[in-house]
Amino acid sequence: MSTPRKQVILGAYLGGVNHHTAWWHPEAGSQIDFSSFEHTARTAERGRFDFFFLAEGLILRERGGKIFDQDIIGRPDTFGVLAAIAAVTEHLGLAGTINATFNEPYELARQFATLDHLSGGRAAWNVVTSFDAFTGQNFRRGGFLDPADRYVRAEETLNAVRALWDSWDADDIVADKETGQFLARPDAGEFAFHGQQFDIAGRFTVPRSPQGRPVILQAGVSPQGRDFAAANADAIFSPYGKLPEAADFYRDIKARAVAAGRSADDIKILPSASFVLGDTDAEAIEKYHQIRNEQVTGQTALILLEQIWNRDLSAYDPEGPIPAIEPDPDAPTFIQGRAFLHQDRFATVRRLREVSEAKKLTLRETVIDQFERGPIVGTPARVAEKIDDFVSNDGSDGFILGSHLVPTGLDEFVDRVVPLLQDRGVLRAEYSGTTLRDNLGLPGVRSVSVPADA
Amino acid sequence: MSTPRKQVILGAYLGGVNHHTAWWHPEAGSQIDFSSFEHTARTAERGRFDFFFLAEGLILRERGGKIFDQDIIGRPDTFGVLAAIAAVTEHLGLAGTINATFNEPYELARQFATLDHLSGGRAAWNVVTSFDAFTGQNFRRGGFLDPADRYVRAEETLNAVRALWDSWDADDIVADKETGQFLARPDAGEFAFHGQQFDIAGRFTVPRSPQGRPVILQAGVSPQGRDFAAANADAIFSPYGKLPEAADFYRDIKARAVAAGRSADDIKILPSASFVLGDTDAEAIEKYHQIRNEQVTGQTALILLEQIWNRDLSAYDPEGPIPAIEPDPDAPTFIQGRAFLHQDRFATVRRLREVSEAKKLTLRETVIDQFERGPIVGTPARVAEKIDDFVSNDGSDGFILGSHLVPTGLDEFVDRVVPLLQDRGVLRAEYSGTTLRDNLGLPGVRSVSVPADA
Repeated sequence: MSTPRKQVILGAYLGGVNHHTAWWHPEAGSQIDFSSFEHTARTAERGRFDFFFLAEGLILRERGGKIFDQDIIGRPDTFGVLAAIAAVTEHLGLAGTINATFNEPYELARQFATLDHLSGGRAAWNVVTSFDAFTGQNFRRGGFLDPADRYVRAEETLNAVRALWDSWDADDIVADKETGQFLARPDAGEFAFHGQQFDIAGRFTVPRSPQGRPVILQAGVSPQGRDFAAANADAIFSPYGKLPEAADFYRDIKARAVAAGRSADDIKILPSASFVLGDTDAEAIEKYHQIRNEQVTGQTALILLEQIWNRDLSAYDPEGPIPAIEPDPDAPTFIQGRAFLHQDRFATVRRLREVSEAKKLTLRETVIDQFERGPIVGTPARVAEKIDDFVSNDGSDGFILGSHLVPTGLDEFVDRVVPLLQDRGVLRAEYSGTTLRDNLGLPGVRSVSVPADA
Repeated sequence: MSTPRKQVILGAYLGGVNHHTAWWHPEAGSQIDFSSFEHTARTAERGRFDFFFLAEGLILRERGGKIFDQDIIGRPDTFGVLAAIAAVTEHLGLAGTINATFNEPYELARQFATLDHLSGGRAAWNVVTSFDAFTGQNFRRGGFLDPADRYVRAEETLNAVRALWDSWDADDIVADKETGQFLARPDAGEFAFHGQQFDIAGRFTVPRSPQGRPVILQAGVSPQGRDFAAANADAIFSPYGKLPEAADFYRDIKARAVAAGRSADDIKILPSASFVLGDTDAEAIEKYHQIRNEQVTGQTALILLEQIWNRDLSAYDPEGPIPAIEPDPDAPTFIQGRAFLHQDRFATVRRLREVSEAKKLTLRETVIDQFERGPIVGTPARVAEKIDDFVSNDGSDGFILGSHLVPTGLDEFVDRVVPLLQDRGVLRAEYSGTTLRDNLGLPGVRSVSVPADA
C-alpha cells in the first residue's frame, strides 16, 4: 500500500482593475459585473479548488490628488459578491478580505456567520489591518491606528468575533413542533467582551453557523505578524514563491503554531501565484514575456516608481535610464493608498540604478525585473510538476492562483493542469467534505456554550 | 379603446420566527435556511411580483431578561440573503430593511450600490430608525437617540448616501481598450457631506449602479414621519388596510408629496396584508379563524399583554378574564425589544376590559380581536376582486403580501389569484422594465455629476 501523497490546496483569486489583470486585453471581460465573478467561481469549483478569494479595495488610489487606473476600482462589496456566489455554487469555499481596523465585531460576526449559513459552511475571513489615514478618511470613525496598535485591535476584533460566534450552540434551536418550544435555552446568543478596543455585551442574533467558526486567513511577515497568524489563523498567505526561502517560512510558521499549542497541520501555508501555459515550455516562456511586457506599460512603470520617488516622474522616458533625481520623502504623499510603505526610498533607488546598469535595462525593463513576481510558467505537465514538487517539498500547502485574464483566465488551468494534478493523486477528483474546514483538512470547531464574561 | 386599468404593485414579505409565521405548523419549513428565502423569492417572481421584502431583526426580544420565541430570531444578515437571491432571480426587486440609526452612510451606500450592481438594478432600501437603548447595546457606538433626532439623523443619512451614489456618473467608466483609458475623469467618486450627524469626505469606491439611486421605501404615520416619507420615499408602507382610512392616508401622502415638489405618481402607497384562500368564502373564513386561533396561543396572548402591563402575567388564565391588576409603567421594562411603545398603558387596558366585557371574550380572544389585523379572506376570485377594488378606489397602489406559512405560503396565491389579477388587466403577464424603478413606474434618476460640497 502506497503512502497517500500530500494534497495540494488551491484557491482562486480574482484580481481587481490593475496592471496585473489586463482589462484592456481583447479577451478581457468586466471586472465589475457579477457574471465575471460567477464565471471564475464556477470554473474554480469545476476544478475542485478549495476556495474562491476576493481582495478588498476600501480606497481608490490617487496620484497627485486624482484617481489613477491601477487599483481595485469600483468593486462591489465583498460580502454581496460572495453571498451571490454562494447561491450558484455547492462546494467552493468563499473567502473575503475584510478590514479589522474599520469594522465592528458585531457586524463582522453577523456577516461571516450569515455567509456561512447561506453557503452551508463555506465562509472564510481574510483578516487584514490598515494603518494609513488616507483610507480612514472614508470612515467617520477616523482612520489612523499606530502600527503597534493594529495587532492589538486585530486580535481583540478576532476574539470578540469568536465570542459572538460561540454565543450560540449548535443545538440551541430545537423548533419542536409538538411542544411548541423553539429555543433550547433562553440565554442563547448572550455575549460579553471587555477589551481595550471594544467593550460590548448583548445578544447575538445569528444562530450557530455550520462551521461554528468560519475559516480564518491571515498574512504576516514581521515577527509580530507571524506570531499573530501562527496563533490565530487557519491558513496564512506566504509572500515566498521560491524555495528555499519558502521552506524556511513554512518551517518557521509551523514551529510558531506548535509553540502556540497547536498542531503543525492546523495551519496551512499558501503563496499567491499566477501561471502561464503553453504547448511547449518555450512557447509558454515567450507568452509570459509578452504578457509582462503588456502589463507594465511605460506609464505603469513610471507610476510604480513615483511611489518610491514621491515625485511626479511623468516627464521621464520609460525607455530611458532610471531618473537621476533623488526621492523626496518629505513632500506630501504623491501616490496615496498604496498597500506597502517604502521605508528606505534611497536604498531602493540605489538598488534599481545598480540593476539597471548591470543588466543594461531601461526604466520600464528594470521595473519588470524588480517588481513583477515570476509566475509558474510551462506546459501543463511542467506546471503540474512544479506545483506538486513545491508542495511535496514543504514550500507550501498549496497556492492561491490568479490569472492576468478576467474572467476566463482560470479556464485553461482547470481544463489542462487540474486533470494532471488529479492523476498525480495530489488533488481531489470530487469534494469529500461538507464544509470548507473539512475540505482544507482543518480540525472541526467544538460547539461550546461559553458563559458570557468567560 | 379602453382606458388601461390602474396596475397593482405586489411585494412578497417573508416574516421571521414569530406567532404570525406559524413555525410549528406541520407544513412549515425553516425560517433560517437559504432554501426558504429562495423558494419564496422564486415564487414571487413566477407571480410577477414587483419585489421581495425582508424585515430586519437587530435584536432578540427578552421577557424578564430571557429571550422568548416571538421575534425575527437568528435571521441571517439582510444584505447577504438579498445578494444570494439576486443570483437566482432575474426580474424581482430586492428590498432590505436597514436601520439608519446605527449604520454609517459609506457602508450603506456601498452595500445598496453593490446589491444594485449584482442584481442589475433591483435594489431597494426600507429606511427605518431605532430609538431604544436596548437595541443600541449591541453596538459599540451606543444606541439611544432622542425620537426628535431620529428623523434628523435619518434625513442626513439618506442625503449622505445619495451624495455617495451621485459621486459617480453613469459614464465614468470608459474602459477603452484601444487608448488604455479606464476612467472618464480622475475625480470620479469624489464626495463631501457636512452635516450635524456626519462630516465625511473622500472617494466612493463603487461606480454608479444601474438604478443610480436604489428605490427608497419608508414607513411613517406621525405628521413628521409623513412629511419625511413624502419628501424622500419612492414608496411608503401604509398601516391602513381598510377603506376609508386607507384612502384618507393615500390622499394625504400624495398631497404632501405634491407640496414637496414631486408628482403624486412618484410615491407609491403599499399596506401590508396577509391572505387566506378557500374553495368557498365560508371555507376561507373557517380556515382564517382556525389559523388565528393557532397563532395566538394562550402563552402568546399573555406575552402580548405583558408588553402593555409591564408585568409578569404568566399566572393568569388565558381563557379567563382580562387581569384585574393595573399596569406597572415604572418597573424595569419587562419585555424588551418591542417595536412600538405603549404611550398610554392605562387607556389600552381600559379598552381591552370594555371589549372583553361587551363581546364576552376571554383574555386570549380579546387579544385576537384587538391586535390581529384581518387578512384578505375568500375564494381566489373574491381575493382578486378585493385587491383590485382596493387599489382602483385609491386605498393604495398595491400590497405587501405575507403568509402564515413559510416558505410555501405564497404558492397558492401565485397559482390561484395571480392569473385572475392578470385576467383583470391589473397585473403584468411579463416584466416589461429592466430595473425595479421601471417596474414600479417610478421616474428614472438622472446621472448627475454633482460637484463635491454642492
